[in-house]
Amino acid sequence: MARPRKINDDTLLESLRETFLEVGPAVTTRELAERAGVSEGTLFKRFGDKRKMFVQALRLPDFHEEQWYRSLANREKTVPLRDYLIDVGLRLHGALSISVPIIQTVFSNQFINPQDIRTLLRRNKETPPLQILDTFAALFENEMAAGEIRTSRPLDLARFFVGAIHSDVHLRLYFPQDATFTPEEMLEEVVETLLGFIALPKEPT
Amino acid sequence: MARPRKINDDTLLESLRETFLEVGPAVTTRELAERAGVSEGTLFKRFGDKRKMFVQALRLPDFHEEQWYRSLANREKTVPLRDYLIDVGLRLHGALSISVPIIQTVFSNQFINPQDIRTLLRRNKETPPLQILDTFAALFENEMAAGEIRTSRPLDLARFFVGAIHSDVHLRLYFPQDATFTPEEMLEEVVETLLGFIALPKEPT
Repeated sequence: MARPRKINDDTLLESLRETFLEVGPAVTTRELAERAGVSEGTLFKRFGDKRKMFVQALRLPDFHEEQWYRSLANREKTVPLRDYLIDVGLRLHGALSISVPIIQTVFSNQFINPQDIRTLLRRNKETPPLQILDTFAALFENEMAAGEIRTSRPLDLARFFVGAIHSDVHLRLYFPQDATFTPEEMLEEVVETLLGFIALPKEPT
Repeated sequence: MARPRKINDDTLLESLRETFLEVGPAVTTRELAERAGVSEGTLFKRFGDKRKMFVQALRLPDFHEEQWYRSLANREKTVPLRDYLIDVGLRLHGALSISVPIIQTVFSNQFINPQDIRTLLRRNKETPPLQILDTFAALFENEMAAGEIRTSRPLDLARFFVGAIHSDVHLRLYFPQDATFTPEEMLEEVVETLLGFIALPKEPT
């Protein structure tokens, strides 16, 4: 029988959170472990690498690891493009609604060197906002290659689509009572308009 | 000869700023005046109403009062639409680059009731982000009415255009070293792509 855990994950994450916010994201895993009263090995085994410790301690949604995001650029052709865009748009809206206020709090913390959090959050050399843009651009590029939509600049389509979602998240964050429409309604409208622009011309019958 | 001002504007604004951040935006102009050591009349005469005191004390760009923004929806037809969109897009980018970090600081201030700042910043019953969207939507609607662009949903065009700018501002705010393109380059690209979508079909010659 496994030895019962003396310190549960929530208590450890609370300690990690305090240390990250007090010392900053450049803190060593050794210091994180010392302050939490456990070994470095325990931290690695329970939470993974330092980026993952940070993401879990700050309760950031780690959507980059989720299946819908990892497979975002490759739509299953059984799902209509319209439905797919609304679905992934709503998932991104939900993830940003959680992460944007946390990121703002972290960056406004005077003990945190912005460069350290950038270094910690970078994945495959890309910072999260550019990574999101590139992932949506890859989706649009694949749709163009498959002949599903008109040829245009995929990155700009991503800027329009992600930008509309990002702005809507901010609107609801600061002025929740003034959004007279739901995120679903917003997404249905922008997807319809975007598809109106990028849909292939109907072939003459 | 006018009596010399005993307290200069900068000193007064610094006092207003402290009071707004300590007491919150619901503070009365009477208390603002008392803490600044001047009369309410002096504050009104020098800075205007309470909204204007707040905007100036927090150094928020009051672009809603500027000519380019007030006349945004009505393009002079001597300026090509492409150049006009890049110009107003860059102006919005510049204004948001200043206001977004200030707004984040204000909203993360624990003494400030978010509802109070919403009430203070609302103009003509509209909160700033919706006001910006509606202003750009009015521009696109006017262009449609004048037969300059294809008919589509003006609000969605505004969501795409303002959203792309808003996201770019946030990218540069948090990850300044990772933006490998300038705001000008970004705007030239998105305007070209957007015009590709909304330009009228060429008439057969």
